[in-house]
Amino acid sequence: MPQQHRAHATRQAILSAAAEEFDRAGYAATPLSAILRRSGVTKGAFYFHFPSKESLATALVRAQEAVWPELYQRWVEQGVDPLRMLVGLVDDLARAIATDTVVRAGLRLSCESGLIDNDLPSPYPLWERVLFELFDQAGAGGLLRDGVNPAVAARVVNAALVGARIISCSLNRCTDVTQRTRELWPLVLRGIATDVWFEGWVGESRASSPLYAQ
Amino acid sequence: MPQQHRAHATRQAILSAAAEEFDRAGYAATPLSAILRRSGVTKGAFYFHFPSKESLATALVRAQEAVWPELYQRWVEQGVDPLRMLVGLVDDLARAIATDTVVRAGLRLSCESGLIDNDLPSPYPLWERVLFELFDQAGAGGLLRDGVNPAVAARVVNAALVGARIISCSLNRCTDVTQRTRELWPLVLRGIATDVWFEGWVGESRASSPLYAQ
Repeated sequence: MPQQHRAHATRQAILSAAAEEFDRAGYAATPLSAILRRSGVTKGAFYFHFPSKESLATALVRAQEAVWPELYQRWVEQGVDPLRMLVGLVDDLARAIATDTVVRAGLRLSCESGLIDNDLPSPYPLWERVLFELFDQAGAGGLLRDGVNPAVAARVVNAALVGARIISCSLNRCTDVTQRTRELWPLVLRGIATDVWFEGWVGESRASSPLYAQ
Repeated sequence: MPQQHRAHATRQAILSAAAEEFDRAGYAATPLSAILRRSGVTKGAFYFHFPSKESLATALVRAQEAVWPELYQRWVEQGVDPLRMLVGLVDDLARAIATDTVVRAGLRLSCESGLIDNDLPSPYPLWERVLFELFDQAGAGGLLRDGVNPAVAARVVNAALVGARIISCSLNRCTDVTQRTRELWPLVLRGIATDVWFEGWVGESRASSPLYAQ
């Protein structure tokens, strides 16, 4: 194997071992030695790729962040209304969390950003802004129930999604995160969307998936 | 100061310093040395009271657990319906989280129970059971919207409350946890309760607090 391929393979082995370990126990409780042991990489080779455990965690946070814009763009291109886009986007995110260890670990680490590096921003305000934009567009399109404040809707949905992920990942290693996020919508969107939007969506959803049916 | 009073004061100083430190950084990232430094207690005196950092964290989890049954009992005695009890109980819990460092730290630690001691159960299933019982009673009393499954409602509300606490405590040291939990109800309860219950409750809440108004 040429040297640069080997270097790439080593870097990937470190990232993948780190994702497994951080996903299981979080940043502070994972010693670098556990990552080295799992990856089979020597300390010397490790420091060739990453200056510290901190920089490794930051790389996983960044790798996870890189996933979202592509998923978001794909939903923008679908041309559905902002509330349907929200449901579809969250479903894609939940699937990525359930199946991809790098996404799962990067997300957990990003919520522990204050422990890792003071320059890593908390993800919560960012997610809230994305949600706010979708609800704001929904409001402009007449899809929100009278009197619903898009900023409040964004905070409430952010809280419900963060909680669903944390409970699923804590109790069931994120395996049921798709179910736990899907079952939020019939309860939460009734309080956010107009009756017309909600009844139309429930009709479609019931036809396409038994999970959406109440 | 008689010796047993002094011992009690030392134990309280340790618990209070530990609550401050664990609340800030969680279990794994808090070294015992930081707790000793803050409490001004020597290592020898510490080990007279607690065999390990683990046992200290467990004591805070237990101290926090002891708060809830009393709050719950107080709401049972109010004799209000299960949904109003839920809103009132969560409001009391949020206030305890915002104002009491032992409650705040114990709650954070209880969510990290897997890191502390494998015998410490996760709190999520317990909270879900309490919520299920309230929604199940609400269903029996005809307060739930047609087709709402009390088990799903319990999981959704549990997720929303866990997320609201985590976001508030992560961004604002839990200072806005009362506001973040209160603003869930107008959106979430519309999807759970009957229109009659919901309209009655909104009317009351609007009269008593501007926060409930949408």
